[in-house]
Amino acid sequence: MTLQLDDLRVRHLGECRYDSPLAEMLSTKQTSPHYVAEGDRVLLEDTVSMLAEHRLPPARVPSFEGAGPRRKIYFDPARVTAGIVTCGGLCPGLNNVIRGLVQELAVHYKVKRILGFRNGLRGLTAEHRHDTVELTPAHVRGIHKDGGTILGSSRGGQDAEEMVDSLVLRGVDIMFVIGGDGGMRAATYLSDAIRARGLDIAVIGVPKTIDNDLPFTDQSFGFQSAFARATDFIASVSVEAASSPNGVGIVKLMGRHSGFIASYAALAANGADIVLIPEIPFAFEGPDGLLAHVEQRVRAKGHVVIVLAEGAGQDLLDQPGPQRNGRGTDASGNVKLGNVGELLKERIAAHLAAAGLAPTMRYIDPSYSIRSIAANAYDSVYCLRLAHAAVHAAMAGRTAAAVARWRRRFVHVPLSLMTSRRNQVDPDGDLWMSVLETTCQPAAFGSQPDREKVRTGFC
Amino acid sequence: MTLQLDDLRVRHLGECRYDSPLAEMLSTKQTSPHYVAEGDRVLLEDTVSMLAEHRLPPARVPSFEGAGPRRKIYFDPARVTAGIVTCGGLCPGLNNVIRGLVQELAVHYKVKRILGFRNGLRGLTAEHRHDTVELTPAHVRGIHKDGGTILGSSRGGQDAEEMVDSLVLRGVDIMFVIGGDGGMRAATYLSDAIRARGLDIAVIGVPKTIDNDLPFTDQSFGFQSAFARATDFIASVSVEAASSPNGVGIVKLMGRHSGFIASYAALAANGADIVLIPEIPFAFEGPDGLLAHVEQRVRAKGHVVIVLAEGAGQDLLDQPGPQRNGRGTDASGNVKLGNVGELLKERIAAHLAAAGLAPTMRYIDPSYSIRSIAANAYDSVYCLRLAHAAVHAAMAGRTAAAVARWRRRFVHVPLSLMTSRRNQVDPDGDLWMSVLETTCQPAAFGSQPDREKVRTGFC
Amino acid sequence: MTLQLDDLRVRHLGECRYDSPLAEMLSTKQTSPHYVAEGDRVLLEDTVSMLAEHRLPPARVPSFEGAGPRRKIYFDPARVTAGIVTCGGLCPGLNNVIRGLVQELAVHYKVKRILGFRNGLRGLTAEHRHDTVELTPAHVRGIHKDGGTILGSSRGGQDAEEMVDSLVLRGVDIMFVIGGDGGMRAATYLSDAIRARGLDIAVIGVPKTIDNDLPFTDQSFGFQSAFARATDFIASVSVEAASSPNGVGIVKLMGRHSGFIASYAALAANGADIVLIPEIPFAFEGPDGLLAHVEQRVRAKGHVVIVLAEGAGQDLLDQPGPQRNGRGTDASGNVKLGNVGELLKERIAAHLAAAGLAPTMRYIDPSYSIRSIAANAYDSVYCLRLAHAAVHAAMAGRTAAAVARWRRRFVHVPLSLMTSRRNQVDPDGDLWMSVLETTCQPAAFGSQPDREKVRTGFC
Amino acid sequence: MTLQLDDLRVRHLGECRYDSPLAEMLSTKQTSPHYVAEGDRVLLEDTVSMLAEHRLPPARVPSFEGAGPRRKIYFDPARVTAGIVTCGGLCPGLNNVIRGLVQELAVHYKVKRILGFRNGLRGLTAEHRHDTVELTPAHVRGIHKDGGTILGSSRGGQDAEEMVDSLVLRGVDIMFVIGGDGGMRAATYLSDAIRARGLDIAVIGVPKTIDNDLPFTDQSFGFQSAFARATDFIASVSVEAASSPNGVGIVKLMGRHSGFIASYAALAANGADIVLIPEIPFAFEGPDGLLAHVEQRVRAKGHVVIVLAEGAGQDLLDQPGPQRNGRGTDASGNVKLGNVGELLKERIAAHLAAAGLAPTMRYIDPSYSIRSIAANAYDSVYCLRLAHAAVHAAMAGRTAAAVARWRRRFVHVPLSLMTSRRNQVDPDGDLWMSVLETTCQPAAFGSQPDREKVRTGFC
Repeated sequence: MTLQLDDLRVRHLGECRYDSPLAEMLSTKQTSPHYVAEGDRVLLEDTVSMLAEHRLPPARVPSFEGAGPRRKIYFDPARVTAGIVTCGGLCPGLNNVIRGLVQELAVHYKVKRILGFRNGLRGLTAEHRHDTVELTPAHVRGIHKDGGTILGSSRGGQDAEEMVDSLVLRGVDIMFVIGGDGGMRAATYLSDAIRARGLDIAVIGVPKTIDNDLPFTDQSFGFQSAFARATDFIASVSVEAASSPNGVGIVKLMGRHSGFIASYAALAANGADIVLIPEIPFAFEGPDGLLAHVEQRVRAKGHVVIVLAEGAGQDLLDQPGPQRNGRGTDASGNVKLGNVGELLKERIAAHLAAAGLAPTMRYIDPSYSIRSIAANAYDSVYCLRLAHAAVHAAMAGRTAAAVARWRRRFVHVPLSLMTSRRNQVDPDGDLWMSVLETTCQPAAFGSQPDREKVRTGFC
Repeated sequence: MTLQLDDLRVRHLGECRYDSPLAEMLSTKQTSPHYVAEGDRVLLEDTVSMLAEHRLPPARVPSFEGAGPRRKIYFDPARVTAGIVTCGGLCPGLNNVIRGLVQELAVHYKVKRILGFRNGLRGLTAEHRHDTVELTPAHVRGIHKDGGTILGSSRGGQDAEEMVDSLVLRGVDIMFVIGGDGGMRAATYLSDAIRARGLDIAVIGVPKTIDNDLPFTDQSFGFQSAFARATDFIASVSVEAASSPNGVGIVKLMGRHSGFIASYAALAANGADIVLIPEIPFAFEGPDGLLAHVEQRVRAKGHVVIVLAEGAGQDLLDQPGPQRNGRGTDASGNVKLGNVGELLKERIAAHLAAAGLAPTMRYIDPSYSIRSIAANAYDSVYCLRLAHAAVHAAMAGRTAAAVARWRRRFVHVPLSLMTSRRNQVDPDGDLWMSVLETTCQPAAFGSQPDREKVRTGFC
Repeated sequence: MTLQLDDLRVRHLGECRYDSPLAEMLSTKQTSPHYVAEGDRVLLEDTVSMLAEHRLPPARVPSFEGAGPRRKIYFDPARVTAGIVTCGGLCPGLNNVIRGLVQELAVHYKVKRILGFRNGLRGLTAEHRHDTVELTPAHVRGIHKDGGTILGSSRGGQDAEEMVDSLVLRGVDIMFVIGGDGGMRAATYLSDAIRARGLDIAVIGVPKTIDNDLPFTDQSFGFQSAFARATDFIASVSVEAASSPNGVGIVKLMGRHSGFIASYAALAANGADIVLIPEIPFAFEGPDGLLAHVEQRVRAKGHVVIVLAEGAGQDLLDQPGPQRNGRGTDASGNVKLGNVGELLKERIAAHLAAAGLAPTMRYIDPSYSIRSIAANAYDSVYCLRLAHAAVHAAMAGRTAAAVARWRRRFVHVPLSLMTSRRNQVDPDGDLWMSVLETTCQPAAFGSQPDREKVRTGFC
Repeated sequence: MTLQLDDLRVRHLGECRYDSPLAEMLSTKQTSPHYVAEGDRVLLEDTVSMLAEHRLPPARVPSFEGAGPRRKIYFDPARVTAGIVTCGGLCPGLNNVIRGLVQELAVHYKVKRILGFRNGLRGLTAEHRHDTVELTPAHVRGIHKDGGTILGSSRGGQDAEEMVDSLVLRGVDIMFVIGGDGGMRAATYLSDAIRARGLDIAVIGVPKTIDNDLPFTDQSFGFQSAFARATDFIASVSVEAASSPNGVGIVKLMGRHSGFIASYAALAANGADIVLIPEIPFAFEGPDGLLAHVEQRVRAKGHVVIVLAEGAGQDLLDQPGPQRNGRGTDASGNVKLGNVGELLKERIAAHLAAAGLAPTMRYIDPSYSIRSIAANAYDSVYCLRLAHAAVHAAMAGRTAAAVARWRRRFVHVPLSLMTSRRNQVDPDGDLWMSVLETTCQPAAFGSQPDREKVRTGFC
């Protein structure tokens, strides 16, 4: 799908007629330099060849609206009620975003009423809509030091009409939905339902995905914190494997459909011999298969370290066998993954034992401990700025829009686009190339049964 | 200075005639997907209005050559000798870059001889040129876990001809210069001298600046590690100030000309009331002056926290007084800065005491402890990929070029451009805007003596 | 078993006839103040009532020999060959101990030959005895920054005679065995076999147990590092549980027979509602049972956090059921534990669901990631001093002895005593008392079915 | 001064007549196992020779009263008002102690009113006594994650009568004074004044000293956190020194009279060549002087790392010279120290330059950043248990007593003893011995001008 400029335009609730209260703060010497010029847009694509392909005049080249404060705003801040909800799995930085939203709304736009809905979209149902938290700057002062979300979260969407009712009943004018794939989809339905009723409510999404698998965003908030934490576990299995005869260290990391955490963590820890991600299929058997490579590493180095994204090799689990079938979906509608880590462990242990290399298996699944940490310094800054951008967007009457960082600019992206595709590691791109260069693993395991082995260097 | 496409072109030593040895590693099914297409270039500018301003056909729009492996390379790897030198002040990630260079050269390009010159450009002088370290993958295996540089570093340039002699005498074909402003300038002179002699030696710069003040690079390597570390010290003075009657916490951070560390660290720590950077002048006196604001914060909150970039307010030090004159230059030619932290401490202490708020002053200058740490996870990945890009550039015969990351793409930048301007915090940009939003400090201290105070909110 | 003074005496190989080479280092002004006086002994017991019970003259009160350098030593350092082996599971600080041994031996006693046997006691078998590492100060310089052991480790004992043969064949005069329960037992057999043959070889044990379950030692090395790391995972499940509707966070920590890690980590993290350890049995059912308490906490607080030592509640697993039988022993002879964590998860989930509190279960088993880290600052100091003490003991001809820290003094303990009993959390002691005070959990779960509930406070 | 048993007895306010409310919590099956037996006392001394010296029956041997809960208590919890104050410089763990006190008082003893006095003893003056904080478990729930003290602190004592008036006016029955040398002294005066007036108020001290220089305590709370943090700065200067030609790294650490932080941090960081502490005088000049040793290290190793306690070498500053005289005292009455770090820097730089080894000087003074951090895991546990012990002591009517940890037992120590002597590094003890073994520095610098150099080994 090639995107056109119109696909990238975000919806406006209407004309901006109020003076922004930020004017006082920012204007020095009668100029207001920080305001975003309405016509300034950030290019979707960044290479000459992409540009050449379009053959369009600059004004028609696909681009995103820049985020930031506007001189004129849509809502009268004195009368605004804002709502905030956090959805889906935890991710470092949720509290930072909440804190940034509340501080910007309350301090700079002087918004007086900010409601936190509890436990995800469940908090917008008829049953739970009255159980909100009143959020003030004092309330959120220190929350960024903690992981998780003070509002609670849950998986699963809710009836859009019921959610709109909640917003109307609670008097919400601006709703911030911080969530992943499921949350962005729900926010889209919500804004559709609002539009259908002709209501004057802005819905702004703040995309959240620890897997970095949402599109149109450089890196999702919390991603850097998460992969940094993941490196600790690679270090753990590396130490264990290296300290044991024929040690095999396996760490299973998050990454249902995208291997970003596994790839970045492996590059950062710099001790992995093999990285397996959902984007690159692999085979166990054959002269170029995974098992042969594992055996070769154990023989050469004495041990081997494997970083595994949870979504890798799911096709290998479809074979009949105990505990690998019956996959359903979770409350967010995600297909439940089979446990490829267990399979890997079994197969490698059996293979090495048969090869006379009685292995010491060391398997770690850090699970929640990667996502429940507080945001690191970089993500803290990022979340804060993202929250500021979200507030500016909402006050200027943007709706059905997500705020995102695109090639290092904060931009507005139509909500529906956020769920239109998935960000994945490009098997032909330079990230995966760097993984190959660092691990010295072959470009694929087992795909070319008759290609002769050529690597002999020691990496 | 408006840059034209030709300003952005990097020099090539000549035609690439050798097959890249990476082909074997990367080719799967006879394709070689990772290679960079020669014509693919990354746009210098990223907004529609910038694009519109040029009125150029895509092929003439200013753009950088993409970095990455080429199918054909210039040097015969079997005969290459590479040299590496690290220059200037320490920065997290130096060892990661060295390690990445050595691994890529030795493992993937099978380069057999890699020399590390010691203690910066001094190591290229006649006196020291024989004191090199032979670098191998085994030698560099674990060095990324340590801060500093295993090669040593020093400030100061050296005679270009003498340095060329060293390269010739030691048989160096490819020279990697990892350095800052001074190092990039020296690398430029070195490649000019090489060219003047008609020698076939590539010089590739890897830009290093903990202050993030080099141009044409998203963020310099080590910057994230450094500002993350700096947040610890903001936390320290915040704790001290908050635990003391009328506490005044001041932390002086690196940033001679650019306030990036101070700005990012203040956003991340999220506890600063005032950020002072070189880009924004400030005045002590007057109703809008710094002292009045400090007093107001102490009265309202009980304490105040100030984050100070070392280069801020240097104009205020030009007044006669003890220990503030006689500024010379250091060995890199940098003007020695006066100690604005001491001045701040004196002035604030005196002002508060006179105002009846006997202060408890807490001043920390973490100095080297911010730059001598190991790279964090993000910078580790970044350094590794930058090193890979540098090796690919050199093997493909690029010279007088730096490798950099521009809007999240690795690119080649002419060396001379790296010292042509300085990256600074834009007083009208969204980074500084976020600082103002977070600290609630006014856009400027003391520049508008007759403007009435408007901020009353509590941030 | 009441210990008598003679039980605490360690064996000496013979008379000390050589001058200690440390004399030169330590003597200032002809005094040698650091040497330990032979007659100075550290009391086994520390209270007046214990002392009164004995009714012995001071010289007969049970006491340990103090560790430290002696003025006269048994071995001629110039002719000594030392051996080092690390056994059993990993523990933070192993490399620090190795490094301390090597530095003290080589630098201060000028021992010229130090052999590292590989992969635990396996390295002392006929098959592997030639595969040793020559250890020098240069070799071990930076190893303390890494977790694990550079020598490798493995579980399982070996034939004592075969091991003695190895020492004889390799010319070892002093053998350092760093190991746990199994390692200390093997060292005892080894020194018995040496004695039986009338050989002049010293065997010194350095007790290692991450669970802190060896006796006669204040806290085992690595314990503080390990429980500090464990707090991260308590924090993780606490964040997860608190961010979820009816969240139940469970973290399973090491502790086969002793709940020290669980207790200390719970006190340090200060977020646990319930701590379960092997020393205190618990029941699920009943008005005072675990399930009722869990339910009460979820109702009162919205979530509950449980810290579980792996050895807790093993009696509850003896009931027939899937995957809980067939427990054998591992290579060290440890009984394999059933997985009480899974049982807990099942039972709590079922109970809460039945009670109408559909829970969100969050279970983390950090396993190896707690023990594979580098030693923290405290343990680094401790390991170094312990290693120094071990070298002094060996050079002075002590054998069949372990070095330990007893009430903050380094002492010599007969090896056989180290395996004579197990250090456990005293259910009546002040550590467990503090756990009860902090968690507000009852003194026992389910043991008093008819006692009325008395706690109503909120902790 | 030899201490007798009576010197170690703490004062009791009177007979304990109330049942402890902990009985319900702790009693299982009608037993109350956790209660401390009144007659059980912890020996002051721990070696056979010390014991033998006394020639006393066990009941007369000097010993401390054990801390912990009593079956009968002195105060009626329902009517108790407790006060808390924190005095002097910050130290990791202050908030943990406050939190532990409040939780134990409120949850277990059901004390209803707990007042926090603000900003140290200043908060007990007539001017400030009404500015207190009401402390509840909810109020202190998360404070242990932050450094500093939520109550604020300040230096300086206050009039004892005025402080007693404050306690009477605010109805305080139990006063907890968390403080150092100055705080313990003030608490002593306070309890003397209370006794003189015949009032029924308990004063319990919780000794705090980041320098670990208070007596009768194994290690003061916060000490481990502090020295762990200090190792980061030794690492920093080590990296800087090692990366520079003739690098000289100096880090100045806390330690006015006691070199514990310097010694422990140097052992932990394991990179220092020289440690200078107040307990061991040193001379610059002479063949065995510091300068000669520094020069020798730079020649042998290329750089040198010095860890300096701030109180070391103060005698060398008494020579006339700029900025080194006029030492007064601070508000706590501590003599202001001259800056020996600057002197060291000057002298070493001059010496090496004269020796033809133009040095690169790297000096770090981390100052407050070592003491303002949160407590680490170990100190968190320690502070909590110390706080529990303090509450038990107070409720049982002990007064003029400090709680301390003596040879790993919590005990009661008469307040006056806490300021009767200073804990220092024993130049003849095994801690300093380990420092010498690790650094390979001579036992003293310059004390034996005519002794020939004997060390040649490389450490």
